[in-house]
Amino acid sequence: MEKEILIFGHRSPDTDSITSSIVMANLEAKLGNNAIACRLGDINKETEYVLNYLGIDAPKLLENVPDGAEVILVDHANVKESISNLDNVIIKKIIDHHQVLLNTSYPLYYRAEPLGSTSTILYKLYKENNIEIDKVIATLMLSAIISDTLLFKSPTCTDEDVKTAKELKNIAGVDIEKYGLEMLKAGTDLSSFTTEQILSLDAKAIDLKSTKAIIAQINTASIPNVMERKLYLEPAMNKIINEKGLDLYMLLITDIVNSNSQVIALGKGAHIVEKAYGVTLENNTALLKGVVSRKKQVVPIMTENAD
Amino acid sequence: MEKEILIFGHRSPDTDSITSSIVMANLEAKLGNNAIACRLGDINKETEYVLNYLGIDAPKLLENVPDGAEVILVDHANVKESISNLDNVIIKKIIDHHQVLLNTSYPLYYRAEPLGSTSTILYKLYKENNIEIDKVIATLMLSAIISDTLLFKSPTCTDEDVKTAKELKNIAGVDIEKYGLEMLKAGTDLSSFTTEQILSLDAKAIDLKSTKAIIAQINTASIPNVMERKLYLEPAMNKIINEKGLDLYMLLITDIVNSNSQVIALGKGAHIVEKAYGVTLENNTALLKGVVSRKKQVVPIMTENAD
Repeated sequence: MEKEILIFGHRSPDTDSITSSIVMANLEAKLGNNAIACRLGDINKETEYVLNYLGIDAPKLLENVPDGAEVILVDHANVKESISNLDNVIIKKIIDHHQVLLNTSYPLYYRAEPLGSTSTILYKLYKENNIEIDKVIATLMLSAIISDTLLFKSPTCTDEDVKTAKELKNIAGVDIEKYGLEMLKAGTDLSSFTTEQILSLDAKAIDLKSTKAIIAQINTASIPNVMERKLYLEPAMNKIINEKGLDLYMLLITDIVNSNSQVIALGKGAHIVEKAYGVTLENNTALLKGVVSRKKQVVPIMTENAD
Repeated sequence: MEKEILIFGHRSPDTDSITSSIVMANLEAKLGNNAIACRLGDINKETEYVLNYLGIDAPKLLENVPDGAEVILVDHANVKESISNLDNVIIKKIIDHHQVLLNTSYPLYYRAEPLGSTSTILYKLYKENNIEIDKVIATLMLSAIISDTLLFKSPTCTDEDVKTAKELKNIAGVDIEKYGLEMLKAGTDLSSFTTEQILSLDAKAIDLKSTKAIIAQINTASIPNVMERKLYLEPAMNKIINEKGLDLYMLLITDIVNSNSQVIALGKGAHIVEKAYGVTLENNTALLKGVVSRKKQVVPIMTENAD
């Protein structure tokens, strides 16, 4: 039997990472390849809502990947967000919409575009290969576009994402606004999470010039509800700063309804937030109006103002 | 006026790097983008044959690229084979068929496949965008496929390269065998080159584990004709070894008619060649039967056997 190719998105998987893995496995099967959808971490509540809506299982959780395995990376091209032995496996394909943060010693299939979600690229692959998109696959792709673009409100959203979502909606047969808002709100339910779990939901380790930082993001429908937990969040953030020797821990609490983010910034690099956004941190926090995208509205401006 | 995007292939450009730059500029123009074909070095005699055959000019030679410029990389994704300030420009797109050897701090359009030439990928982009391929563009792409695959004899050649070449042949209206052999032979005319020029025609700096090496390649229709110059080549190679602190200089003299390579290996890493190919170097040289592809038949096996 032909070797089974493992497909997975980034660690701390979001909806696009999980659905892209399932969708890509479907596409590979249609192309006659033996590939299996996997994931590198627990699914979040938003993704759980999508999978429950469709009545399908989560991809297989990978504890580790043997050296020499063949893999397909979706929704990341970042050695720090992938499996620990990425250099010892064979990357057959990459389908992504992020920056390039890995090297290989061999040529491979690489398909990336600066679009709102990986799913918008996967949609093109179905079209190019003349493969029909069924209702489940369409709903998965649509969900990822809604998730990554916060219902088309994020500055990462392109015309192509909107156009693709509309075409997928016709196959999926869902009301985008209604389904999308319910899905996003499902992801904001933090009631069952410990403080540590909240901080690990979507935390990215990023070097801002010489400033060693973690920038974490939590979506919410109510900033005050999350800020009630500030008393517990701050000590947990400081613990991670000490353990990892960080200069900055930046937590973005993003209001998906009104498109603002409340930031909590700790560490000796916290002044970069003040400089970057022209705000004053009071009790380590400030409102960043109109800021929803870490990729477009946080990382570049924070890098520019970092030491 | 919109900013002009600079398109270029790798340093020491081969035919695929030059033609892909011209072809991509044509494609971008058809897509409504303002882009210009450029190159990072002198064109070789094979490429000169192609441009003379079509009566077209070489792309613009880039002496340097200003910081902040927008660029498209073709036929390379390697920081060491590109402009010196690659980190300070904006890479809009990459079209390539090599390994990934660069990082970016922003998402971009990346299109790579493990195919024989960049042109085979460019052909797909024309098809996907429903853009007609004219006779000149078809001949350019066909020439690059013939060049990179040594008339389909290299192990890097895929079924897709062969299929694409056949379709391009119908538009270009050339006899592949006749045109291809003449083009390849034009590239083997070393009569006007100094020893230093021969060594710089297609030399790649490559780390084979901890062995610092240059692996250069020259195509020829007659190995003995090139070996006549061994007396002059060796001192020039030793000079480069001393200047750059290399462990190995490996010169492949590749017979494009019979698909063999004569190797000249100098430096303290020369024994790796003996180990890798099970040959004995006599007067620093040996015949490597059936070896024509540096990418597939030299770099991997040399890396495996390096210290």
